[in-house]
Amino acid sequence: MSDKKIPYKIYLEESEMPKQWYNVRADMKNKPAPLLNPATLKPMTAKELSTVFCDELVQQELDDKTPYFDIPVEIQDFYKMYRPSPLVRAYCLEKALDTPAKIYYKFEGNNTSGSHKLNSAIAQAYYAKKQGLKGVTTETGAGQWGTALSMACSYFGLDCKVYMVKCSYEQKPFRREVMRTYGANVTPSPSETTNVGRQILAKHPGTTGSLGCAISEAVETATSLEGYRYVLGSVLTQVLLHQSIIGLETKAALDKYNITPDIIIGCAGGGSNLGGLISPFMGEKLRGEKNYHFIAVEPASCPSLTRGRYAYDFCDTGMICPLAKMYTLGSGFIPSSNHAGGLRYHGMSSVVSQLYDDKLMEAVCVEQTSVFKAATQFARVEGILPAPESSHAIKVAIDEALKCKESGKDKTIVFGLTGTGYFDLVAYQKFNDGLMDDYIPTEDDLAVGFAGLPKVEL
Amino acid sequence: MSDKKIPYKIYLEESEMPKQWYNVRADMKNKPAPLLNPATLKPMTAKELSTVFCDELVQQELDDKTPYFDIPVEIQDFYKMYRPSPLVRAYCLEKALDTPAKIYYKFEGNNTSGSHKLNSAIAQAYYAKKQGLKGVTTETGAGQWGTALSMACSYFGLDCKVYMVKCSYEQKPFRREVMRTYGANVTPSPSETTNVGRQILAKHPGTTGSLGCAISEAVETATSLEGYRYVLGSVLTQVLLHQSIIGLETKAALDKYNITPDIIIGCAGGGSNLGGLISPFMGEKLRGEKNYHFIAVEPASCPSLTRGRYAYDFCDTGMICPLAKMYTLGSGFIPSSNHAGGLRYHGMSSVVSQLYDDKLMEAVCVEQTSVFKAATQFARVEGILPAPESSHAIKVAIDEALKCKESGKDKTIVFGLTGTGYFDLVAYQKFNDGLMDDYIPTEDDLAVGFAGLPKVEL
Repeated sequence: MSDKKIPYKIYLEESEMPKQWYNVRADMKNKPAPLLNPATLKPMTAKELSTVFCDELVQQELDDKTPYFDIPVEIQDFYKMYRPSPLVRAYCLEKALDTPAKIYYKFEGNNTSGSHKLNSAIAQAYYAKKQGLKGVTTETGAGQWGTALSMACSYFGLDCKVYMVKCSYEQKPFRREVMRTYGANVTPSPSETTNVGRQILAKHPGTTGSLGCAISEAVETATSLEGYRYVLGSVLTQVLLHQSIIGLETKAALDKYNITPDIIIGCAGGGSNLGGLISPFMGEKLRGEKNYHFIAVEPASCPSLTRGRYAYDFCDTGMICPLAKMYTLGSGFIPSSNHAGGLRYHGMSSVVSQLYDDKLMEAVCVEQTSVFKAATQFARVEGILPAPESSHAIKVAIDEALKCKESGKDKTIVFGLTGTGYFDLVAYQKFNDGLMDDYIPTEDDLAVGFAGLPKVEL
Repeated sequence: MSDKKIPYKIYLEESEMPKQWYNVRADMKNKPAPLLNPATLKPMTAKELSTVFCDELVQQELDDKTPYFDIPVEIQDFYKMYRPSPLVRAYCLEKALDTPAKIYYKFEGNNTSGSHKLNSAIAQAYYAKKQGLKGVTTETGAGQWGTALSMACSYFGLDCKVYMVKCSYEQKPFRREVMRTYGANVTPSPSETTNVGRQILAKHPGTTGSLGCAISEAVETATSLEGYRYVLGSVLTQVLLHQSIIGLETKAALDKYNITPDIIIGCAGGGSNLGGLISPFMGEKLRGEKNYHFIAVEPASCPSLTRGRYAYDFCDTGMICPLAKMYTLGSGFIPSSNHAGGLRYHGMSSVVSQLYDDKLMEAVCVEQTSVFKAATQFARVEGILPAPESSHAIKVAIDEALKCKESGKDKTIVFGLTGTGYFDLVAYQKFNDGLMDDYIPTEDDLAVGFAGLPKVEL
């Protein structure tokens, strides 16, 4: 296939869109460790999980054997409104870098949530509706996940209660207004609406909140209201399952043109985008069919894979959620306040953690000024203003393409462009003004988080 | 063709993308009136125009005979980065309205400028580069056009100087930062950098600026700097020519499925999107091949077509630009400060004005609370958060679809969804909080603008 024939954007036809999600756990020899009940330290049962999560999502969470799950027609129909997302050949970036490498990116930003989060939000809302629930609760930081869930709930006529970290609620009012436009109920967290919120406010009257605290409030609300469940936008294996749509579409688009990537790169916060993008390729690697070089990219300021410990840990500050085994910095770890954008969760999806521990993928961490430099370079030649999160992957894709320039190798690089940076312009402004700096936690900084790890003897 | 076979989104293949723009003036019996030199009141010559505009754009501006212009390959390549834009079948909106009408929208928001403006920005930047210029100047209000031009200039390595209306510069810093990220030089207008700016500041020290004033500053800068020209994002016929890509793609997509629209709806500010969308369809109507019902939708607070006069008028406050014959409210007309979003220009493209005067199209005006209500309804079922401007077209598309419900007719409605509302959330917040109100200028309000119309005897 002549390179000239490959279009700038490869779109699948509707008929070529995946009709099943792929569950990479089915092909893993070493399965991810189970969630544990924090009280008994025994694996969570379906019954226990179903007080918090929708029944069908609990099944997906626990099932590490079934390789494919049918995507319900209702979800397929919603996907058709904003998917397939384009796989873009970065001709202009290649030219600007003067590299023999061939660079592709899967762009998930062409929807109002601005990111890939909608892929799982719509699935979770669908199962909640199917179960006859009234609504769902969740937490959100900067608001991408909350926006996605609001859109999904509005589509299915479900109530949506979002606990938004208070500093974001006040300082980033725009995503809050998007959520309200979609009919969601948005509460700044910590709030007076929950026990855990009242306790935190009593103890720290001036606090501006944290993601871990918002999770605790959302879970408490879901479990205390009739007809509500809690939903989560990353970390969980069910989320990775839904996000496999990213990788499946990417693979189908590449297959159409007989392209086999050498390197696949994704940014890693909780692991949902990365896990979704690499899943079908990782499946081939696990089954010994093909080999790929996977790179997870995380911020130097929140380096769970590259500097964390592989251990059971709390998922939330309130410690009411199940324990998960993951690469973690400890639930008490909080990234420096100068850290812009997402990718600030203390832990990592247990699937991604296990794959990394099994040395099936590489992880690197990068500093944020280099990330915004790459973001600006990318924006100027490829047009799209990338999200800071996505720009971590851009940075490493550029690095790899420059290595190809040195070695003369024409490797094929695929990376995930998870979203747009339209709501991150305060960070861009800081960078444009030369006021952004970097932060690398010291060993002492990390020790604080590690000290809070629970003692779990299995 | 069974209706079931029509996908949610019709994408053209790259090979099906238009390779020529269509110049609707070639098929107009009554040509739009020429631009006049404000000093001599004689038609502007190419030589006169070329002190302000790039040479090739001057040719396009003056040529009302050539029906098709080749799109240079460099522009085609840029178009491939974000085009073809999808023609979306609004299945979910149809269902929500319970209408037999079939609704399609051409969505131009999937690029970082957030609107259709990029279609002309890249063309204008290309011709400036080809002419060997150093850079271009322009004005911007809320910033969509400035963003589009910054992206285009960054792509071709041109300097870009943007005069941004001061109140937007200060109150809407995000688009400013997008422009800076693309390397543009953004100056709040009025500024100390121009004679006209200094004069205005001396006369009105506390002024927050206006679009007409920013135009004057941009034109002065372009004509006083070596190697610079001025570019404009709407109103001019060259811009309508470039924007015909919207209509040509729409028509190609409809033709693929043998769909003939009955009603075509576009929002109208300066007329660039509307003119671009309807051009090829209007060509068929002008040539007597087909009949379509065209509807221009404008805000009740700035009703140039529905309540303006068809007369020669100034295009800018400083009165240094050529005079244009257009439906106008007078260059002194300023929409009420409660008016959200764009569509606030006092005049209308001379092409659209002539077509309207020849009764080849209808125009309606709508109030902004009804527009935001339609926007919210649309967002909740179709996913996309629309720009306030685009939502004028949504409002009337919904109205027409509801008429079909009453009459039982299954008309095919196409409307232009020009962009996204991600940078308009202050207005959405106002609407969500129930604080938005409407404004309809009184006859006395309009009289002020009309009084400033120049006396032109031809």
